[in-house]
Amino acid sequence: METFDWAGFFADGFDLDREAYLFLDYYIECSGDPRIAAAHFCAEQSTAQWRRVGYDEDLRPRFGARVIDLEVLRELPSFSYGLSPAAEGPINACRLRIAHPHGNFGPRLPNLLSAICGEGTFFAPGIPVVKLLDIAFPNSYLSAFEGPQFGVEGLRACLRVYERPILFGVIKPNIGLPPEAFSALGYEGWVGGLDIAKDDEMLADTPWCPLARRAELLGEARRHAEASTGMPKIYLANITDEVDLLIDLHDLAVARGANALLLNALPVGLSGVRLLRKHAEVPLVAHFPLIAALSRLAHFGIHTRVITKLQRLAGFDAIIMPGFGRRMQMTDDEVLSCVRACLEPMGPIKPSLPVPGGSDWAGTLPSLYEKLGTVDFGFVPGRGVFGHPQGPRAGAASIRQAWEAIVSGKGLEEYALGHPELAVALAAFGKRTAQTPVPEAPLTGAVS
Amino acid sequence: METFDWAGFFADGFDLDREAYLFLDYYIECSGDPRIAAAHFCAEQSTAQWRRVGYDEDLRPRFGARVIDLEVLRELPSFSYGLSPAAEGPINACRLRIAHPHGNFGPRLPNLLSAICGEGTFFAPGIPVVKLLDIAFPNSYLSAFEGPQFGVEGLRACLRVYERPILFGVIKPNIGLPPEAFSALGYEGWVGGLDIAKDDEMLADTPWCPLARRAELLGEARRHAEASTGMPKIYLANITDEVDLLIDLHDLAVARGANALLLNALPVGLSGVRLLRKHAEVPLVAHFPLIAALSRLAHFGIHTRVITKLQRLAGFDAIIMPGFGRRMQMTDDEVLSCVRACLEPMGPIKPSLPVPGGSDWAGTLPSLYEKLGTVDFGFVPGRGVFGHPQGPRAGAASIRQAWEAIVSGKGLEEYALGHPELAVALAAFGKRTAQTPVPEAPLTGAVS
Repeated sequence: METFDWAGFFADGFDLDREAYLFLDYYIECSGDPRIAAAHFCAEQSTAQWRRVGYDEDLRPRFGARVIDLEVLRELPSFSYGLSPAAEGPINACRLRIAHPHGNFGPRLPNLLSAICGEGTFFAPGIPVVKLLDIAFPNSYLSAFEGPQFGVEGLRACLRVYERPILFGVIKPNIGLPPEAFSALGYEGWVGGLDIAKDDEMLADTPWCPLARRAELLGEARRHAEASTGMPKIYLANITDEVDLLIDLHDLAVARGANALLLNALPVGLSGVRLLRKHAEVPLVAHFPLIAALSRLAHFGIHTRVITKLQRLAGFDAIIMPGFGRRMQMTDDEVLSCVRACLEPMGPIKPSLPVPGGSDWAGTLPSLYEKLGTVDFGFVPGRGVFGHPQGPRAGAASIRQAWEAIVSGKGLEEYALGHPELAVALAAFGKRTAQTPVPEAPLTGAVS
Repeated sequence: METFDWAGFFADGFDLDREAYLFLDYYIECSGDPRIAAAHFCAEQSTAQWRRVGYDEDLRPRFGARVIDLEVLRELPSFSYGLSPAAEGPINACRLRIAHPHGNFGPRLPNLLSAICGEGTFFAPGIPVVKLLDIAFPNSYLSAFEGPQFGVEGLRACLRVYERPILFGVIKPNIGLPPEAFSALGYEGWVGGLDIAKDDEMLADTPWCPLARRAELLGEARRHAEASTGMPKIYLANITDEVDLLIDLHDLAVARGANALLLNALPVGLSGVRLLRKHAEVPLVAHFPLIAALSRLAHFGIHTRVITKLQRLAGFDAIIMPGFGRRMQMTDDEVLSCVRACLEPMGPIKPSLPVPGGSDWAGTLPSLYEKLGTVDFGFVPGRGVFGHPQGPRAGAASIRQAWEAIVSGKGLEEYALGHPELAVALAAFGKRTAQTPVPEAPLTGAVS
């Protein structure tokens, strides 16, 4: 048997031109010699067959992905998750750092995805368990992308909101209301204190709630709310739809009164988002359907941090992401890592506003703020505003009051003494502790 | 605690207007009463809050998703995959069949994905483990989609190939060759007997192998091969790229000589594919990066059968998919199910050619054909053609000879006696058995 030249897929990171490579961290479980497995992993990602039959050539020096660090974490009795290709030799869990030459494909999101989590990554022989943990880009690569147009500063400037989180509210009922009823709810939310009233990520351009009419009425309601509060407001319209319609839907919604647009990032496709980013006149906001299916398991799939970075690269000004709390099934570290991926320096790419969400209401704001340690985030209750027993105006007020309590250094219960909307929120949603999330569906209980 | 009206999310399937609903099969693991969990699952997918505060209304009869079948499979000691939100009550594995009203969002792929595998699906309280197993569409929904333009019959007509599988070959080395060398390999493959010579799914429009020049040279080579063999040939060019470029790349590649186009379906986004389908003049072929990250685990994510159906709906004429053999980590049943998803009746939507791939060579053709039991499939070797020790012309010939052996009822070893290309393939790739797949990277062995 011919010898597989595994050493040709290894390099010392210090010897490489760092501007020419993406740096990728993976968790893998492999059988046999981890060095050979890691080399195969690189080969499959890049120059699987690196010479023509009958030619004396080697395409690897320029085109090969290279292992620059390989750490064997531990030997395992079997592969995780019940995956059981016949193993040849011992099974090891490893951390792998790879330098992948981006000149193989260029600054194109679909080709980037195909290289870093495509067939090569998930079908390397003897490596059934893989998780792409992180990615780092050189500035030469980043500079080919537009990134967020507004970013955190631009979004704050639109709203004239500084030194506090930006308050979103998901208008509920999310599905089924006609535009008239829907816009009345939005108005109440803004007047109560929301900065941004938004469509649910499930709301589409449908006959029973056409986007054109919705944007028109919400636009009117927004201007009324701006007049009565003296503050700019945003109507965040969901234009998630077929990619060939996005530019027309942008124009239609913005002309009628939407001043930011929501896209379900992975269902639309990151490249579809980038298409719209090149045309957009208003901030773009990401929602997270499909991401959990790729990221929830500790050792398989793609880490949410990577998906967050790619959404930022695609041009989202704000990224709604699974946040804290039991329902969202994220560790605190994972949420914090995604928040950092929005805000940390990224060459020429502006920061995106992180919006960690999940069953929020007034009572979840203090712990969220404490965990994040910054005001640069968005807060996105749904029922916590629109299911408030006194209605959405009071619901929004309860959120503002929760922030006032934080600023004044008071506990929510104490601050609620003089603030009935907060008091009612605590009574309605705070049954167990002030940090209990509100289930999205109304009020769980015993079988009737 | 107010009672959650779980019965409002159940229905008898016979009572529903079947044309108004999508039918979805899920595997879930839930804690507590499975009926309540299943109702929450439906609520999160649709009308999470089904009435406004202060209104006597119920949006569920029209907009609610409904459980139409719930089967408790078994009680579990814990959730699978190490997922451990605090469980309230016993944990059960269940099969769930849901009727989801498609009028909630309409015939839009991004909104469909958001509804069936979005936030609602993966963040229903107490249901950390979910797999979307299958989907069925009513004709009223399907008729809004274009589906494949050519389908299996159209592809056969393009090639004038009937009553046998369509033979693809992935030109290798996949990355790094200039257009001149690349096209010379394609020519050899066609003359040797390939119907379709294709770009690797990793090959992009790069400075070292620009699509324009590649399509021009491969187009010339294709016409020469057609002249010398007397048969139509296809150059399948990979135009996976940013969505806003797809139409221009289609026009450029087709004008120069590509007569089918490859797209990495999920990295481009299914909606981007549909955009191109509306414009395309040539067959579109799907490749499968990213799919394993969603589908590999038995009880989590999205079944490949569902992804296959969605690719067919998006308009692919052929779908390259993970096939049989140890490397691809699919069960035989799963591959067969994806093949059926391509070929089975689907209202007005044409069939797509299934192309189950993975380390194929002449020796894997007999068992593939036997397992599929139809000639309506594509066969897609890479190194099995382009890594053949006598070069790609002989490699392609070895595949044709393997098919001739099947037709003549002979074993490969027997047929190889008079067919040196097949004999060399058996010697080079068939070390263990005739069914051993070829690893994509050349020849594994001991550490040197």
